[in-house]
Amino acid sequence: MDLDTSTWEKTAQAKGQAILKAIPLEWRVPQPIPPVDVTGAYIQGFLNAREIEITEADAVAITTQTTSGKWSAVEVTEAFCHRAAIAHQLVNCLHEIFFEDALRVAKELDENFAATGKPTGPLHGLPVSLKDQFHVKGVETTMGYVGWIGTFEGNKDDPRAGVVESELVRELRNLGAVLFCKTSVPLTLMTGETANNIIGYTWNPNNRRLSSGGSSGGEGALLALRGSPAGFGSDIGGSIRIPAAFNGVFGLRPSTGRMPYEGVANSIDGQNTVLSVVGPMATSIGSLKLLFKAVLSQEPWLYDPLALPLPWRDDLEMETQKLIKESSGRGPLLSFGIMRHDGVVQPHPPVKEAMVFVTHILKELGHQMIEWDPQLCKEGQEIAERAYNMDSGEDLLSHISLSGEAQIPQCLVETGKHLNAREVAALNVQKRQYQKKYMDHWNSTSKKTATGRPVDAIVCPTAPHAAVIPGKFRHTGYTSFVNVLDYTSVVTPISRVDKGIHRFEPLPQFLSEVDQMVYDAEIYHGAPVGIQLIGRRLEEEKVLALAEYISKNIADFGGEGYVQPRA
Amino acid sequence: MDLDTSTWEKTAQAKGQAILKAIPLEWRVPQPIPPVDVTGAYIQGFLNAREIEITEADAVAITTQTTSGKWSAVEVTEAFCHRAAIAHQLVNCLHEIFFEDALRVAKELDENFAATGKPTGPLHGLPVSLKDQFHVKGVETTMGYVGWIGTFEGNKDDPRAGVVESELVRELRNLGAVLFCKTSVPLTLMTGETANNIIGYTWNPNNRRLSSGGSSGGEGALLALRGSPAGFGSDIGGSIRIPAAFNGVFGLRPSTGRMPYEGVANSIDGQNTVLSVVGPMATSIGSLKLLFKAVLSQEPWLYDPLALPLPWRDDLEMETQKLIKESSGRGPLLSFGIMRHDGVVQPHPPVKEAMVFVTHILKELGHQMIEWDPQLCKEGQEIAERAYNMDSGEDLLSHISLSGEAQIPQCLVETGKHLNAREVAALNVQKRQYQKKYMDHWNSTSKKTATGRPVDAIVCPTAPHAAVIPGKFRHTGYTSFVNVLDYTSVVTPISRVDKGIHRFEPLPQFLSEVDQMVYDAEIYHGAPVGIQLIGRRLEEEKVLALAEYISKNIADFGGEGYVQPRA
Repeated sequence: MDLDTSTWEKTAQAKGQAILKAIPLEWRVPQPIPPVDVTGAYIQGFLNAREIEITEADAVAITTQTTSGKWSAVEVTEAFCHRAAIAHQLVNCLHEIFFEDALRVAKELDENFAATGKPTGPLHGLPVSLKDQFHVKGVETTMGYVGWIGTFEGNKDDPRAGVVESELVRELRNLGAVLFCKTSVPLTLMTGETANNIIGYTWNPNNRRLSSGGSSGGEGALLALRGSPAGFGSDIGGSIRIPAAFNGVFGLRPSTGRMPYEGVANSIDGQNTVLSVVGPMATSIGSLKLLFKAVLSQEPWLYDPLALPLPWRDDLEMETQKLIKESSGRGPLLSFGIMRHDGVVQPHPPVKEAMVFVTHILKELGHQMIEWDPQLCKEGQEIAERAYNMDSGEDLLSHISLSGEAQIPQCLVETGKHLNAREVAALNVQKRQYQKKYMDHWNSTSKKTATGRPVDAIVCPTAPHAAVIPGKFRHTGYTSFVNVLDYTSVVTPISRVDKGIHRFEPLPQFLSEVDQMVYDAEIYHGAPVGIQLIGRRLEEEKVLALAEYISKNIADFGGEGYVQPRA
Repeated sequence: MDLDTSTWEKTAQAKGQAILKAIPLEWRVPQPIPPVDVTGAYIQGFLNAREIEITEADAVAITTQTTSGKWSAVEVTEAFCHRAAIAHQLVNCLHEIFFEDALRVAKELDENFAATGKPTGPLHGLPVSLKDQFHVKGVETTMGYVGWIGTFEGNKDDPRAGVVESELVRELRNLGAVLFCKTSVPLTLMTGETANNIIGYTWNPNNRRLSSGGSSGGEGALLALRGSPAGFGSDIGGSIRIPAAFNGVFGLRPSTGRMPYEGVANSIDGQNTVLSVVGPMATSIGSLKLLFKAVLSQEPWLYDPLALPLPWRDDLEMETQKLIKESSGRGPLLSFGIMRHDGVVQPHPPVKEAMVFVTHILKELGHQMIEWDPQLCKEGQEIAERAYNMDSGEDLLSHISLSGEAQIPQCLVETGKHLNAREVAALNVQKRQYQKKYMDHWNSTSKKTATGRPVDAIVCPTAPHAAVIPGKFRHTGYTSFVNVLDYTSVVTPISRVDKGIHRFEPLPQFLSEVDQMVYDAEIYHGAPVGIQLIGRRLEEEKVLALAEYISKNIADFGGEGYVQPRA
């Protein structure tokens, strides 16, 4: 490249400034930002009562209002644009801002409603944010790479730039959604923190000394600040679940083939040993379900060759709800595997306690809890790592080298051996055999359950720690084995770190080198903790129903951001 | 290897002899075999009337009798064992014979029926043959490799040898099926003829100067001789469809993930750009449906990590049947794309005429026929070739070199460049983009149809020729693009070559080098011609319903082995 270092820095800086400039002057926030926690009262201070009312409703409540014409799309959109603008200034969570386009679309939706008396679709007037991998007309996609600025996925003079839209975007428009911003990612997408040379670091709104997670970190942070009611991220090793857990919001990693990935920019595209998937993130489980179901109603399998012809299965949802309903007082009709750690890195005290809390609640509700041996985790983690690095980092490095930008410590590209086709095939066989082993183990639990059926889901941490200290993210082991298995996983917020309760506990022994991660109650104070509920492959309907039930009970038992009683 | 040439020849010969020795003396056929066509009256000459009655019933008729206790499993099994034994001696179609095991299982099924008054499952007492990739307890799997004799997939002293069973085999046993033989394949599996150093060449029963096709050639030949009512093959580039067409029987290549491949021996295992799939082959469409539906009732997705949780969808079948029913006299409610050639190799006169015949019938029945541009075929064929050879033939050669056996002209291993992981990824991206292009083209036909829906299926040849002259198979282009697209395809027999009608026609111009394949009416006389009915991905229920309808009408119009009127 003929660009020197100063050039990429200028390009990056100009783009960062352009993002800020897209925010109307009247929505600017005075710098510096004083508090550690900018959620709740702090961000509310920038908004009027009506804006707060709208933006603190979840997607289900919002669409109830907008599809019945009670709230206008324009009013809802404006409120979220305002709050998202504030959010970005507090934690650096946006890559693209297109509020004017959003308001134009909202106006059209309102006009259409006025003319027909009917909503455009189930997401009529709902603002939806998108991780900066999705292509939206008239808007750039940088995916955190300086070399992608002013190009189409790094290709200069590509006629698709600013013109094509991802299949999901097309479907969201059909459904009546209003797209208004794209959220920040780490360049490469291959890390659990969000940092790049364009916007810098995306901070955790609950505790600005901590990470928002990654790679859908901007999405997680924006949702935590209620700058968006719902959005879409992607997950190849935890990239939806980690930021959901770190930010105290909900996220669904579906199995491959349910949500359309067609026409979405990606890292290491074509690596198909462990596939990245698209999934919704939101401020309630109901919202995840709303988005997931709405997209399926568009029959993505007719437009995306990798999407499966699996519409939303009411029967699977109903069956699960029946088991939940009939469980109370009738002996266990549901059973859960509890995996307290992954055998490699032990969870910090707040995460450990969140697991105790969830176990306690599920037992109280009359369900059977079965200890889940973590011994199968490690092989999954290793397969994932080898899949991610099978090309020796060549694809990732090619995008970094487009501009010659500096590597960022959080996004260092792992190199190593470049596999050949036969070695890739051997890895695919190992992966399948691993999946089979896990499947057999899951089936074998039918011998242990009172129901005579295998466990309904597995409960486990999302990460060994709450939202991590910048630069300290090192272990995706709690999430990446799920990608290798292609299971369905929902992250649900459980609690927050409380320095008065979650004290440092010296570990009796380390399970691995990475296990020596220091827990510091002072620094972690206030950081959200979320756990995973993992179901079998393509069981999204079931897992969402179970997660909704658990999430509701967590709230009833005083969880979800509150200090919880010891079990 | 320490084996010299004479050793592999002895090993191969001994194995070939052992197969023959497994046939009871009273079932031996005097050599040499006189006629060219050994189907029908010729093979019937070795059987008694009751055996003929049983073996010429299809799987649907047989299970009607066996599940109601009218025919005993033992009697049915014995009849098919006898006929299969004759078949093997006529055309070399078996690799493994285990009639004693089969009769023991049949006896148990009868005893169980006598005790309970109920069949074991929907396939109670149905003999089912298997391509020699499936593992069956107590039986070898050689897959045509001399080096696999006495091993487990080439590994000596492997404790799994003769002990493990493929997942499909376990399910077939649950369903009440009786396994009795495994059918011949070409070593490597990567060709449209069936030949190996163990049994030699599998001939076409309709015309013993021609090929039975491949790689499920033994299965096709056995079915043509009614030595089995139904069986399972596999297909990565046409290996179910080519032998089905060449032998005048029916075959279904489902999309990946419907039938369990778990625990089945394979070539280039782990190459997952274009996956091999398992599918049923049989003597009627009803039988394909019976087997397919029965296997799905076993919920293979709980035991095979690559199987999809898609049970048999009655609604999709009913919907299709409704369209068929309402079509007559009400204007076209169904529409078909007609792809007369693939743009690379022009079909021989009998194949060309079979297409004219089917088009004529479908028009007569009131459906809309739309000419289908073949221009998208070639790229699919190229992607398939590159996927098959991505490891430069290393895997295939490693199995051949186990014994040092001679390569066979039909199974020469293609070498070429060994791709690296990044090149594999690029190929995967190209494949996905190709699938998207084809999908968009399919969707676009809604503008041409009277129904306003895209075409319901595509009709096209299975190969440019009828059952091929040995050594002349060179072009899988009519089938392999379907594997790249992962579409569903059913092969239905249409006609037979008649030297009095299907004369040599000089081509006005060749489409490619391979296009110069000589048609010779004398040699091809009597060879069956079958065509493909191709549906979209995972639309097996729909395509089977359409194929059943078309197949019935072909018979009514004088097709299926009869000389048909000119359209």
